[in-house]
Amino acid sequence: MKIAYEGTSFSGWQIQPDSDSIQQRIEDALEIILKERVRIIGSGRTDAGVHALGQVAHFKYPSSIDTKRTLFSLNGILPKSIRILSLENAPADFHAQYSAISKTYHYRLCLSPVENPLQRNYRVHEPRKIDLDLLHQGIQPLLGSHDFSAFANKQTVGSAGKDPVRNLKRIDIIEEEGGIRLEFESNGFLYKMVRNIVGTLLEVGLSKRPPDDVVRILNSKDRRQASMAAPPKGLVLFHVDYFNE
Amino acid sequence: MKIAYEGTSFSGWQIQPDSDSIQQRIEDALEIILKERVRIIGSGRTDAGVHALGQVAHFKYPSSIDTKRTLFSLNGILPKSIRILSLENAPADFHAQYSAISKTYHYRLCLSPVENPLQRNYRVHEPRKIDLDLLHQGIQPLLGSHDFSAFANKQTVGSAGKDPVRNLKRIDIIEEEGGIRLEFESNGFLYKMVRNIVGTLLEVGLSKRPPDDVVRILNSKDRRQASMAAPPKGLVLFHVDYFNE
Repeated sequence: MKIAYEGTSFSGWQIQPDSDSIQQRIEDALEIILKERVRIIGSGRTDAGVHALGQVAHFKYPSSIDTKRTLFSLNGILPKSIRILSLENAPADFHAQYSAISKTYHYRLCLSPVENPLQRNYRVHEPRKIDLDLLHQGIQPLLGSHDFSAFANKQTVGSAGKDPVRNLKRIDIIEEEGGIRLEFESNGFLYKMVRNIVGTLLEVGLSKRPPDDVVRILNSKDRRQASMAAPPKGLVLFHVDYFNE
Repeated sequence: MKIAYEGTSFSGWQIQPDSDSIQQRIEDALEIILKERVRIIGSGRTDAGVHALGQVAHFKYPSSIDTKRTLFSLNGILPKSIRILSLENAPADFHAQYSAISKTYHYRLCLSPVENPLQRNYRVHEPRKIDLDLLHQGIQPLLGSHDFSAFANKQTVGSAGKDPVRNLKRIDIIEEEGGIRLEFESNGFLYKMVRNIVGTLLEVGLSKRPPDDVVRILNSKDRRQASMAAPPKGLVLFHVDYFNE
């Protein structure tokens, strides 16, 4: 299934005790329809406040289901802030996380002197002058295959021994009405990697750090060298690519 | 002052007893700053749920004020859903409503099979097939100067004897990501005129009415002939034009 959600009022993708997660909401809705509990596996977690327009998840179910009808029922049960965009049968070896070959995240900034209130949950407001040339210079050393440890937060579970090398294929700066959108495409992202990169790039764009700092930070492999993570509300999981698409 | 707001959680622009209006919020914020109550006059009312990116309002104040500082303070006091975009001294004869020579409203529709949750408060979802050619045909008879009584709701106060002729300069259909935006520009709009026109045009686009019906409705000058008003959340007061701009 392909899923879009506004993350503003959720604790994030992943089920956690005493919190309102997107995964929990979808599993609860599926339980009503299928009359039994299934576990859904997402392409990856998104943190509290992070949005998605193209999250992908799978679940195993022994019988065949009417996908069109189930899609319709799911959207009827789920809150309007979570929408199932599509639902289809997958090959038996499909895995939403392990079969993914590439992901695209967008990070949006409002650069107007006063924030646009209609987009306040989807863009981070930066009224100070951002130098797009500096931003562009800061981006270059990040492209390609690198050990991105300096831009990765440690996850509380499941990250031990994870290979920190990722191939960052592109970071594009797209001008939008009243701001910019940074598009990140990679074969995978480490925990908080996009937000840590954006936080650092913003300091470069604001002339608080020279663009060369990015190379130094990357080579240090030390998370403490990079800037604070940019706020979650600007981030959208836009697309997940799979081999057979 | 030029004002942007998300109308979702407000009762509309105008102050009313026991309700949370944008006008009330701004007057309350100004009272904190100026230490006295002033009445602000908007270019026009917007209904509950209707948004603005370019509402204009004025108020009279006997002393000179530091506009830059007041703008900053106002935005500090107001909720994030209301933003003062600019504040400047106006000529003594300026009136936000009577000096306006033209207004632009946008009406946004999401035409995807499943609604985009990030825009659910700013677009109206119409998953049925809209024929843009029919929509275009329905628009033509509305352009120019007409008595728009058939597309105007009666206001409870202040509308008696109002001239119902307006010059509708343009209705443009702009394609957007996953939908369309209808742009309306006129020397003025009657109460609920845009939403009543959109409601009627949608029935034309859905082939529920022939495009010729629009001429018949317009000539009838009878509100009961037109369709129901389209929902408020798709509407944005985008811009107000004044002579000296």
